[in-house]
Amino acid sequence: MAVTLNTFRDARRRIAPYILGTPLLRLPALDSPLGCKVYVKAECLQITGAFKLRGAMNKLLSLPAEQLARGVCAASSGNHGRALAYGAKQLGTSAVIVIPRTAPEIKIEGIRALGAEVVLSDADARFAVAETISQERGMTIVPPYDDEAIMAGQGTLGLEIMEECPEMDMVITPVSGGGLLSGTAAAVKGVSPRTRVFGAEPDALPRYSESLAVGRRVTVERHESVADALVSVTPGEHCFPCVQQYADGVAPVSDEYLLKGMRLLLTEGKLLGEPSACTGLGAVLQKRIAVKPDERVCFVISGGNTSLAQVNALTKIN
Amino acid sequence: MAVTLNTFRDARRRIAPYILGTPLLRLPALDSPLGCKVYVKAECLQITGAFKLRGAMNKLLSLPAEQLARGVCAASSGNHGRALAYGAKQLGTSAVIVIPRTAPEIKIEGIRALGAEVVLSDADARFAVAETISQERGMTIVPPYDDEAIMAGQGTLGLEIMEECPEMDMVITPVSGGGLLSGTAAAVKGVSPRTRVFGAEPDALPRYSESLAVGRRVTVERHESVADALVSVTPGEHCFPCVQQYADGVAPVSDEYLLKGMRLLLTEGKLLGEPSACTGLGAVLQKRIAVKPDERVCFVISGGNTSLAQVNALTKIN
Repeated sequence: MAVTLNTFRDARRRIAPYILGTPLLRLPALDSPLGCKVYVKAECLQITGAFKLRGAMNKLLSLPAEQLARGVCAASSGNHGRALAYGAKQLGTSAVIVIPRTAPEIKIEGIRALGAEVVLSDADARFAVAETISQERGMTIVPPYDDEAIMAGQGTLGLEIMEECPEMDMVITPVSGGGLLSGTAAAVKGVSPRTRVFGAEPDALPRYSESLAVGRRVTVERHESVADALVSVTPGEHCFPCVQQYADGVAPVSDEYLLKGMRLLLTEGKLLGEPSACTGLGAVLQKRIAVKPDERVCFVISGGNTSLAQVNALTKIN
Repeated sequence: MAVTLNTFRDARRRIAPYILGTPLLRLPALDSPLGCKVYVKAECLQITGAFKLRGAMNKLLSLPAEQLARGVCAASSGNHGRALAYGAKQLGTSAVIVIPRTAPEIKIEGIRALGAEVVLSDADARFAVAETISQERGMTIVPPYDDEAIMAGQGTLGLEIMEECPEMDMVITPVSGGGLLSGTAAAVKGVSPRTRVFGAEPDALPRYSESLAVGRRVTVERHESVADALVSVTPGEHCFPCVQQYADGVAPVSDEYLLKGMRLLLTEGKLLGEPSACTGLGAVLQKRIAVKPDERVCFVISGGNTSLAQVNALTKIN
């Protein structure tokens, strides 16, 4: 990725009319439990409930007009699908979202309500189905992370963080395929080389920890995690070198600790993040990322699309 | 109350080093369910978890040095007690908080953890016990709302709202004794006479609705409500005329609807407010306050001190 600050500045200008410049919140109630001066970038307040709208909008707005007019397509029942459905509607084009038959009805209805056509498929076949639709209808497939325009869009939140608080010492994002981490790390370092940027991923799927350790993209075994938005088994081809170059590391976190992070954010921080959004909080609670009391640390709360049932389950952890 | 804008500006300058200038959040996800352009003033993110710190700090900082040095006292197991305990510690003086024996252990421990001395009493005797302590130890009683310095401190959040969004059309606050509503209404009208300001109170305790209807302070019968921070049975003597003069009305809201408001704030707004903080959301949902799609309406989310058990109970409402 030919990363320059202008890549992110251009993306930011492009997507500004369509996204929310989410607040950077200072949460002093979390300082003592986490051991640092706590800030959160509240992407749970983003339109469609997650940061994914940034990348999706930037990709859509980067397409040539004719190509955009033919519509877009993605295989995703989650935050990327929601973002793409919303973005396509805003720009007056069509979107087809391929969703596994096994997905909860509420997710399917949520994406339909955003104006997209939903195609149900077997879970294993969903990418092939999207590919077929793309070819038959001339629709452009928008990948969830492994794309420079997507990475640039996600990185815009890094610019916003540093603009509001130039003295930020550390930024921590969740990581799966790496779109958010790669974009955020490159943007933050572009503005402030001394600010450290970390990723945090579930113990169950350590694709970045293992890949960074050996210096190449490794595919890990698929395991279940409560972080249901962080399911990639391999780092993105475009994302990985960017993470290698700009991020200071990726820490694994157990499901137990990321749920403790989610509970802490809710009960003391008064904010609802989805489990996947709380890996950074969990990693610091679990001492997998070291912080100091006088350091300003920004946790990117990447989304808030969760259920009251998941919230209720928080009473069951220690 | 000799209300001038300077009263609030002075209070704001005085308390600034001790409080959080809480964010005014734009929550587009709530526009459609509420029928207006939704903003929230997130006092649930305030230090000690509620707006009460504003008034308590302003009162403490208005006391002559000798009087402050002798300490302060209040009968409150709730947000006022927490705020006073925290404020006294910040200023290096002592605080005695009188709490009913029947209060949950977590509230008692929370106030002790903030550095205050806790005295347990029978619920009915708590004000008398505070009075005795005040006389015996020369400590100043800090009332929860019926005091001009308290009202001026609460009103500072009105200044912050109008400074961030001068075009705000309406502000809605919860109301009990009236410290928050009177201060907010006077401050908002001082800056922007055209902006309407409403209070929202539980159906079970319509002290302001009834008092405003007859033009004098009425004492209502004590009834239970889920809004456990809004328990006054009579409007404050200093608060009432100020509400009469500056507020545009007070609407009652049912427990069912304020809990619906709390659930909406959490699931769509991703913010945790305590039940008492959600009367305004409930009143608009219940059509007790009329709003229009193009109006900017700010809901003051007065506090976030609630439990996961209360959150879990939200699954039981319709």
